[in-house]
Amino acid sequence: MRVGVLGTGTVGRAIAARLAELGHEVVVGTRDVTATMARTEPDGRGNPPFGTWAEERPQVTVGSFADAAAGELIVNATSGAGSLPSLTAAGEDNLAGKVLLDVANPLDFSAGMPPTLLVKDTDSLGEQIQRAFPQARVVKALNTMNALVMVHPDRVPGDHSVFLSGDDSDAKQMVTDLFRGFGWSADNIVDLGGIRSARGVEMYLPLWLSLRQALGTGDFNIHVVRA
Amino acid sequence: MRVGVLGTGTVGRAIAARLAELGHEVVVGTRDVTATMARTEPDGRGNPPFGTWAEERPQVTVGSFADAAAGELIVNATSGAGSLPSLTAAGEDNLAGKVLLDVANPLDFSAGMPPTLLVKDTDSLGEQIQRAFPQARVVKALNTMNALVMVHPDRVPGDHSVFLSGDDSDAKQMVTDLFRGFGWSADNIVDLGGIRSARGVEMYLPLWLSLRQALGTGDFNIHVVRA
Repeated sequence: MRVGVLGTGTVGRAIAARLAELGHEVVVGTRDVTATMARTEPDGRGNPPFGTWAEERPQVTVGSFADAAAGELIVNATSGAGSLPSLTAAGEDNLAGKVLLDVANPLDFSAGMPPTLLVKDTDSLGEQIQRAFPQARVVKALNTMNALVMVHPDRVPGDHSVFLSGDDSDAKQMVTDLFRGFGWSADNIVDLGGIRSARGVEMYLPLWLSLRQALGTGDFNIHVVRA
Repeated sequence: MRVGVLGTGTVGRAIAARLAELGHEVVVGTRDVTATMARTEPDGRGNPPFGTWAEERPQVTVGSFADAAAGELIVNATSGAGSLPSLTAAGEDNLAGKVLLDVANPLDFSAGMPPTLLVKDTDSLGEQIQRAFPQARVVKALNTMNALVMVHPDRVPGDHSVFLSGDDSDAKQMVTDLFRGFGWSADNIVDLGGIRSARGVEMYLPLWLSLRQALGTGDFNIHVVRA
């Protein structure tokens, strides 16, 4: 499958690398290809410059947001604040009818740690994206864990959960199949319902950040245990 | 131990009954004892009237908020909107130096389901209570699950987690001991840090509500699984 991944940060790299490893044709999209590839310093989170990462993965193509959005499946791995502008640059026509997996968290780090939320209990970034691109088939998922756990769930032992929110059942099935390929067992993929339920997974982030601090690692996840 | 439980709803009843069963001396506090005991209709959530519940549990005493706050440990099981007024009625002097276990969720159901939050990412009800009663030793906990799971964790099989947030280590230890009595194993009691981390557990509620709807039961909980 041809997949476009929007975003060149930790999350975009992890998803793009895993998809390529699984044999998908991956285009990573960025706002300004020339500027992105010209950077020689580590990014704000200490990752090597994207150009270095891309050189080591010749099977991944780098292009504009619109190039990436030509894929069958589009992954939004941009920042919360950058999501709507990036998707607009990708082009509404490119998104129409496509499954759009939204992994972004609407976190605002401008006042330091802990971040506040750009969107909260009366809306969600997932819903904003669905409203802005009504012909896209938005599925919110994966935003509740760190990037490596998303694509290698076996980094955390035993059962733990990944959530799906979206209005389109076929789109959620496509994402479920993708996650099965990442290593998620069917029982651990929890369908929360419509895109409105993205509010819950986005508002979970402050708890995730407290847990990361308390546990001293990002290699954890939550498992929904039921009677 | 003498424990005061503020609130006569589902959560207050479950905690009071369990504490009494474990041999603690329990006073359930309510705003207006005469009015509470005079009610003959089920409450808004279909529970039998509190007077009926209390008659069946002669070992539990019913009193004012101030009567309940005379205990060594005080449990805030009032509504989110009612918490600060109820604690004010309980009396700042009664709360001074006491461990105050805050179980309330700042949910606003006034616009129907799903509820919005009265407090969110830049503050929490737990912090508001700690600021309003600086001599109380506030521990936020138990608000992330339904009332029966709080006090009977074995309703959900296997390992699952309960979180503690608070600035006073001795107070958290006292609450930990209490939870061990309820049946929580030490490994499943997760200390998130200071009272500021109450933001995370309070903002988790929208996800809990989505899960309850998706699973069709409140008999579930999350387990923090780490590498």
